[in-house]
Amino acid sequence: METKAQVLYDFTAEPGNNELSVGEGETITITNQNVGGGWIEAKNSRGEVGLVPEDYIEIKQAQPFTSGGNAASLDLSLFDSHIPTPAPASTAQVDVAQPETPVTPVTPGFSSTSPDETSNGNDPWAVFDNNASGGVSNNWAAQPEGTETGKTSSNAWHSGGHGHPQAYQGPGAEDDEWDEEWDDVKSSGGYAESDAGEGGAINRGGAHGSSMKIALNKFPGFSKSGPEVFLLSKQPAKGTKLPVYGGEVGPVWAYPDYQLDCVVADPKKGSKMYGLKSYIEYQVTPTTTNKPVNHRYKHFDWLYERLLDKFGSAIPIPCLPDKQVTGRFEEEFIKMRMERLQGWMSRMCRHPVISSSEVFQLFISYKDEKDWKTGKRKAEKDETVGVMIFSTIEPEGLPDLDLIEVEQKCEQFNRFTRAMDDGVKDLLTVGNEHWKRCTGPLPKEYQRIGKAFQNLSSVFTSSGYEGEAALTDALTAAGKTYEDIAQMVAEQPKKDLHFLMETNNEYKGLLGCFPDTIGVHKAAIEKVKEADKLVATSKITPSEKTTMSKRASTMSYALQAEMNHFHSNRIYDYNRVMQQYLEQQVKFYEMIAEKLRHAHSQFTTM
Amino acid sequence: METKAQVLYDFTAEPGNNELSVGEGETITITNQNVGGGWIEAKNSRGEVGLVPEDYIEIKQAQPFTSGGNAASLDLSLFDSHIPTPAPASTAQVDVAQPETPVTPVTPGFSSTSPDETSNGNDPWAVFDNNASGGVSNNWAAQPEGTETGKTSSNAWHSGGHGHPQAYQGPGAEDDEWDEEWDDVKSSGGYAESDAGEGGAINRGGAHGSSMKIALNKFPGFSKSGPEVFLLSKQPAKGTKLPVYGGEVGPVWAYPDYQLDCVVADPKKGSKMYGLKSYIEYQVTPTTTNKPVNHRYKHFDWLYERLLDKFGSAIPIPCLPDKQVTGRFEEEFIKMRMERLQGWMSRMCRHPVISSSEVFQLFISYKDEKDWKTGKRKAEKDETVGVMIFSTIEPEGLPDLDLIEVEQKCEQFNRFTRAMDDGVKDLLTVGNEHWKRCTGPLPKEYQRIGKAFQNLSSVFTSSGYEGEAALTDALTAAGKTYEDIAQMVAEQPKKDLHFLMETNNEYKGLLGCFPDTIGVHKAAIEKVKEADKLVATSKITPSEKTTMSKRASTMSYALQAEMNHFHSNRIYDYNRVMQQYLEQQVKFYEMIAEKLRHAHSQFTTM
Repeated sequence: METKAQVLYDFTAEPGNNELSVGEGETITITNQNVGGGWIEAKNSRGEVGLVPEDYIEIKQAQPFTSGGNAASLDLSLFDSHIPTPAPASTAQVDVAQPETPVTPVTPGFSSTSPDETSNGNDPWAVFDNNASGGVSNNWAAQPEGTETGKTSSNAWHSGGHGHPQAYQGPGAEDDEWDEEWDDVKSSGGYAESDAGEGGAINRGGAHGSSMKIALNKFPGFSKSGPEVFLLSKQPAKGTKLPVYGGEVGPVWAYPDYQLDCVVADPKKGSKMYGLKSYIEYQVTPTTTNKPVNHRYKHFDWLYERLLDKFGSAIPIPCLPDKQVTGRFEEEFIKMRMERLQGWMSRMCRHPVISSSEVFQLFISYKDEKDWKTGKRKAEKDETVGVMIFSTIEPEGLPDLDLIEVEQKCEQFNRFTRAMDDGVKDLLTVGNEHWKRCTGPLPKEYQRIGKAFQNLSSVFTSSGYEGEAALTDALTAAGKTYEDIAQMVAEQPKKDLHFLMETNNEYKGLLGCFPDTIGVHKAAIEKVKEADKLVATSKITPSEKTTMSKRASTMSYALQAEMNHFHSNRIYDYNRVMQQYLEQQVKFYEMIAEKLRHAHSQFTTM
Repeated sequence: METKAQVLYDFTAEPGNNELSVGEGETITITNQNVGGGWIEAKNSRGEVGLVPEDYIEIKQAQPFTSGGNAASLDLSLFDSHIPTPAPASTAQVDVAQPETPVTPVTPGFSSTSPDETSNGNDPWAVFDNNASGGVSNNWAAQPEGTETGKTSSNAWHSGGHGHPQAYQGPGAEDDEWDEEWDDVKSSGGYAESDAGEGGAINRGGAHGSSMKIALNKFPGFSKSGPEVFLLSKQPAKGTKLPVYGGEVGPVWAYPDYQLDCVVADPKKGSKMYGLKSYIEYQVTPTTTNKPVNHRYKHFDWLYERLLDKFGSAIPIPCLPDKQVTGRFEEEFIKMRMERLQGWMSRMCRHPVISSSEVFQLFISYKDEKDWKTGKRKAEKDETVGVMIFSTIEPEGLPDLDLIEVEQKCEQFNRFTRAMDDGVKDLLTVGNEHWKRCTGPLPKEYQRIGKAFQNLSSVFTSSGYEGEAALTDALTAAGKTYEDIAQMVAEQPKKDLHFLMETNNEYKGLLGCFPDTIGVHKAAIEKVKEADKLVATSKITPSEKTTMSKRASTMSYALQAEMNHFHSNRIYDYNRVMQQYLEQQVKFYEMIAEKLRHAHSQFTTM
């Protein structure tokens, strides 16, 4: 039985890379589903065979993991997409009693919209719209106890292995884990409306998926996704303590004396599968050891997933730069990705909690392959993930906050990050428009002005009139000056607007994580608000209620420390980028003035 | 019997000006045809009565001059427009044997396309396309002898009074000629394709009708329109001699020691017909007398017509700035017209032949109304008009040119003016595009950038974080700077591009006159070429042939002197305007750089 797939998006093959160009709506036949690395081998209707990115297609007739048709193969197309479907190769526990939670069929290696994203629509901030007036949030994080949605999706996702399915296929696969392919697919999340506004430009606009997905449901024992897991936890805290101090600006993380940084550089092309697939390896050199380590994009992605699992409830972990399939060996793309990986790594390095974490230290300074493998396995088994990170947080000498104060802070941060998100997107939209004008119509116009002057000059030269040369020379020079200006205009955005855009893009990504992070806090607040009722109905003891309140206060200190970290970085970043932008702008206009002054001097005064 | 008219173009009434708004295609009833000044009073279907410009309508059922219906009234609509129609109130001599010459029905006060314009289509240069290869021109000026087209049109036009019909209605009308209205309608001629390209902008693009119409056929005795009138003329030359000297650059006009100029200023609104119609009077002050005289636009137009009649065959007389009917009392329009009248007057002043002519001197320095009237009547009776102007030209100490040389010069001037015409139009198109961008999308973009910075600044202010003020103040200042830049960008074209555009516009108008002027010369050359044949068929004597050749040489000297005048003015004008443009551009970019430098300085170095 053949496996057919429908192409979801146009994909243009990279020449000499064993890829197959496909068009949206086209039906292709899967010839090898186990290529790995987010690729499948497929055949089109003209019989051409090549690699196609998995996330560009939707498989119509799925087969179970073992290749070759058999009676157990399941035609997923028979299921309505609103009915949760068991993922293949798992002991699926399907709860079909929740049809309001759409779960699309899950195939290994496929990323799909999670129910959480769906329920929020496209606006990650929407859930807070009515909150100021005390309305009950319908956000997943604030899901009233008893709703099984979280559980259902947890099961459906867990079975498929959320994130990197093949990374969790058992010890048999582990031996060659260094070489194996992981699914690089990222969910890009909630900002479709803004991304659309930036379409048509180069990668610039679409970079950085802007919402992180906190995978609380991924590990056994976390099937209940809410913050109550921490609020009511009876387990002793495991892992490094994370102190929060009272600083000048309020609660702050413990900052190291030495500010870590690292350099991402020297991208090298490697290949595997007998040259069938190639990849890029980047050199990461931390300022501490000054010893470079090599990482592929998928390793960065692995790190991202670990950081998200571990810290995502307390610290917004910005997405990596988007994976881009087409043109990924083009020099410019590699350079751009490297620059963005650098930006991401620098931001992680600057964060006192992240940069000092074991998994991050492993990533930037593992000694050898064995060290990496061991550390990797250990990190994947870390149990202090999700909301449990709050169990390691220790407010030092800070008084417990009452719920009203906790809620006020949370609301304030939500309002601010939301407003800043709007402001940043606005600037990105405007900047993108300006970029397009500066690289498109504007230099064309200066070029045409330049040509018109030169053209007139050559007409004048043909006059046969004596004493024409002084004018025609000057007019030609003026024309050439405007052609030079055209080029300057076209190249300028790369010198100034680029950094302004990149910084704002980074912040857009970072701000996109806040709804999730703040959502965890909002949900905790809701839980604590319910505590009296829970005590009254004997679901918890009065002592547990006290613990919940105290833990909500701890969570709030973590959030405040994180916000203060965010603010101080923000002030630094915007100061720096605005200075850089304006400095380059000044140079640009001065250079134009200088060029024109020279052109002017060539005309004779009469 | 009612006189109906069809509206040809939309016309929007000036409020408080007794005008009537009409729309293209609308049928209106003429209620008073004798309002004058290019206006008629009409009633629309809603019974509203008001003034409408005559040239915006086409009368459907014409009445003879005397108002009130009578049996003699002629329904012109019965005639096909291709059949020449007698003009009313004249002893029309209609030659219906020339149907290939379309003559539209002529109604008093109506200007219409002359057959000459029609035969040339829209490209005034087209006639020369095949000439380089010796082909016979089909231009009217080169009309083979015996074709009656010129005669026919002459008769048809003369009877209606070409140009200003009411100026020629007999002595009864002359007493109040100062106040009477003339038809201001100008034929805008051959540049429709270029005008279309400039549509959408303000008046800038459409200014200056760009082809002059040499009215050779206007006076009795000039019914034969060709240059042979001069080439074979036996009349002694009348009027002031116009010497041509051998200068450094070749043949040149005699330049006066004192360069005349005049100032057009102080536009004043006047009214007449008991306030029914109002007009603008400009003050013209020549540098010679420094005594101002007042002139309305129609007086300038009268001067233009006189100069065209008298000098147009030898000297391109640029059209006046277009008459604009709507909004003609708006301040900006008056300012623009004044500026252009100034430009036109300065150009006339700079021309040694024109500035020293009797009619021009009358215009700028008449002593009183009587002086003006007398001079006006005299000028209108001047017989040294059309090609006869060449009879006054006297090459001083210059050898006769042979026909080959005459022809080469003519071809060269034609090539050059044509090429420059293209170059100037190209620059105008580009400049117009640039103008639109600088006043439209570009400042809007800078404004949006400015707003985005300010918006981000006010979001930052709301953070509640300490030590935010330095950044937010600087960011607000940067935002305001970009708003300032937006305004500077929008206002800049008026400071630099404006003069570049105006100068090129002037040259476009001037260059548009060359096909007509050069056409006269081409026609003369063709005539001289035919001389041998004419001698052989005894149509002329050998001595007449010699005279013709000598006179063609004289004509060539006049053309060369004129071209040299044109070149020297061109070099002066373009030097000046480019210097002015670049100087303002330098200032502009320097100012932007300075503003941004200030904005930059407000960010704190960290």
